[in-house]
Amino acid sequence: MVVDPFNVSGKIDYDKLIDKFGSTLLTPSLLDRLGNLARKRGMKLHRFLRRGIFFSHRDLEKILTAAETGQGLYLYTGRGPSSAAMHLGHLVPFLMTRWLQAALGVPLVVQMTDDEKFLWKGEYDEAAGDYDLDRFRALTVQNAKDIIACGFDKDRTFIFSDVDYMGHMYPNVCKIWKSITYNTARAAFGFEGSSNVGQSAFPAIQAAPSFPSTFKVPLGNRDDLACLIPCAIDQDPYFRVTRDIAHKIAPKSHPLKGKPALIHSKFFPPLQGAMGKMSSSDDNSAIFLTDDDATIERKIMTHAFSGGRERGGKRVIQVRFNMSRETAKLQRELGADLEVDVAFQWLKFFLEDDGELASIEAQYGSGSGDYWNTAAVKKRLVVELQGLVKDHQAKRDVLTDADVASWMAVRELAPAL
Amino acid sequence: MVVDPFNVSGKIDYDKLIDKFGSTLLTPSLLDRLGNLARKRGMKLHRFLRRGIFFSHRDLEKILTAAETGQGLYLYTGRGPSSAAMHLGHLVPFLMTRWLQAALGVPLVVQMTDDEKFLWKGEYDEAAGDYDLDRFRALTVQNAKDIIACGFDKDRTFIFSDVDYMGHMYPNVCKIWKSITYNTARAAFGFEGSSNVGQSAFPAIQAAPSFPSTFKVPLGNRDDLACLIPCAIDQDPYFRVTRDIAHKIAPKSHPLKGKPALIHSKFFPPLQGAMGKMSSSDDNSAIFLTDDDATIERKIMTHAFSGGRERGGKRVIQVRFNMSRETAKLQRELGADLEVDVAFQWLKFFLEDDGELASIEAQYGSGSGDYWNTAAVKKRLVVELQGLVKDHQAKRDVLTDADVASWMAVRELAPAL
Repeated sequence: MVVDPFNVSGKIDYDKLIDKFGSTLLTPSLLDRLGNLARKRGMKLHRFLRRGIFFSHRDLEKILTAAETGQGLYLYTGRGPSSAAMHLGHLVPFLMTRWLQAALGVPLVVQMTDDEKFLWKGEYDEAAGDYDLDRFRALTVQNAKDIIACGFDKDRTFIFSDVDYMGHMYPNVCKIWKSITYNTARAAFGFEGSSNVGQSAFPAIQAAPSFPSTFKVPLGNRDDLACLIPCAIDQDPYFRVTRDIAHKIAPKSHPLKGKPALIHSKFFPPLQGAMGKMSSSDDNSAIFLTDDDATIERKIMTHAFSGGRERGGKRVIQVRFNMSRETAKLQRELGADLEVDVAFQWLKFFLEDDGELASIEAQYGSGSGDYWNTAAVKKRLVVELQGLVKDHQAKRDVLTDADVASWMAVRELAPAL
Repeated sequence: MVVDPFNVSGKIDYDKLIDKFGSTLLTPSLLDRLGNLARKRGMKLHRFLRRGIFFSHRDLEKILTAAETGQGLYLYTGRGPSSAAMHLGHLVPFLMTRWLQAALGVPLVVQMTDDEKFLWKGEYDEAAGDYDLDRFRALTVQNAKDIIACGFDKDRTFIFSDVDYMGHMYPNVCKIWKSITYNTARAAFGFEGSSNVGQSAFPAIQAAPSFPSTFKVPLGNRDDLACLIPCAIDQDPYFRVTRDIAHKIAPKSHPLKGKPALIHSKFFPPLQGAMGKMSSSDDNSAIFLTDDDATIERKIMTHAFSGGRERGGKRVIQVRFNMSRETAKLQRELGADLEVDVAFQWLKFFLEDDGELASIEAQYGSGSGDYWNTAAVKKRLVVELQGLVKDHQAKRDVLTDADVASWMAVRELAPAL
């Protein structure tokens, strides 16, 4: 198992991971408190929280206190714009963040790390005689449309490109740079001497939005706001380093001594099996937000790794809409291994109805009942995702570049609800 | 002999230095071409050039061609604002730059590296609960007054603080970061693992103003302007690294393939002797631009290392206004060692009259004539510097913070004359 901001691979043991990282499991009592806050706005706990998809945290109890007492907080999440097509896995932190914003009524900042992606994946274009930095700036605009389509509260959401917003961040970036030695950065992020110097400079730039003073205009000079970061757990190393030096960046009056709080998600598994995390680079391992109905159907029916069992204990992977009677019979006899069944795992992320999910879990897992076998579960997932993606596309396609510019304008956000 | 951007010490062998650095001696023919350009504006070659104080260069011939053909160029120099009181040594690059601006009629950008000084010399203030970054920003304003008092062409001069202007520089900083490995930066600048990560990020920030695209507004989107940097030779390593990667940052059409050209000065020696360079940290080794007449007189008469000889070949260091007859007699017999005589060396920097300097050199050096001995040369220097400093103070003292702000406003500069 390898989990760091640049690599996630192997079978993930989440208990070991939070042990190694030093974060804390989300407890029922914390979830109760968050649920109570949500209920005041007529909402119930998000399925990601009901189902342990967001499972770990740092200092969430202090964030809940800030929310309960009206002390004030904001949310921070981000995206590295390395490809125009975002996939379902990319949606996870944004859907969680959207829910948190609505449940807590708070401002949100979304960092688009065009500089990071350029420093790691950019190239010098000999023909053009220039680096391709502008390509990542263009991807930022395209990705921002997908983010906006998630349905944030525009008056309380500031999306920014690092390249464009650096002028505002730079005083805090200098202070963070000053607080971190090269050795510390290397230990946390694994740079080598042959890495470009921007790579060791970058962690401070991802750290800066953890401090409300980075957003003097958007957050209205509220240096004492607490910060909550929803992210996949592979991003935790950035914020461990940030938390270690936070007391030097935030004012003494800050309720968390400057430390950003975090809630961590598990990884959204690739279609081929519940290992690592979904990647944009293998087209067949992911459902993209640009995929059409037929593509979604083909990818899931053909590539989703199944926990249903066939003759000799072999698992069913390729499935057409109609399974043979014999296979269906065997699946009922043997039951499915739900831990490795990607279609079932994905339904846990995206199927809102707890009752339906429970009945799939019970019947498909045990082989009982007549309906739920590999083909049926996949079909259910296809329908769910076709709906989700079509809905997303409808919201995304109406967004113009001018709309994006208005979300990315440096402006004072509305105060917390 | 140690010469790098952070340390200058030992007896400087300038021939060895340009050999080691790989720069080129300024030739009479280059000086002639520069003199011809100056003559067109009714000026003569600056004494720093007539006397070999600026003595080395990179690609100056291409800058002269750009100036002669009207191709276009700009000047870039800078200052690290680490103390409010600038000293005479700090004036040298600015006086050279002022002359070049007037002689060539070109725009100038002046980088105030408040970020650099913070990263190297800043401190966390426990009582205030913050880093002292703002201290360096305030020093920038104070130092900018001294720079403005040198007499630049305001319509063609943009002074900027890195902290304030970073937003404009950042696309080029990213490209430069991407072009330099940590190993390269360490080899050039000697960082250690315990250095803060900002220190290895900084060289790109000093490199960025070498490229006209860093000044889209001030230089009016003229990406093809050549850049000439007047600086002391200890700053050369920054620009060697810059020149190595310049072709990746500037467009292919750039006349020097993006490389900034340089002219290098020797160091302005400290009062105690012609070794290393003047430092702000030893109050008695420097004349500050804030010193009054009495202080200037005291420092020079008491501390300026003399090349005049006393009994037994010992040198005269402490001098009152009246030397004993015996000492004066010995000095005439033995002549002075002008190479180590700080008062004479300083007069080479600041005494404009070539004839007077030549007669001091001939008479004091050989011991001939009745007038020039250690006391007389020091007195001559005192008078010269009292005039220079008083004149500087008069120009500086009328400058308000609002004046500074107008020099530092991001604005389009007037085109070259």
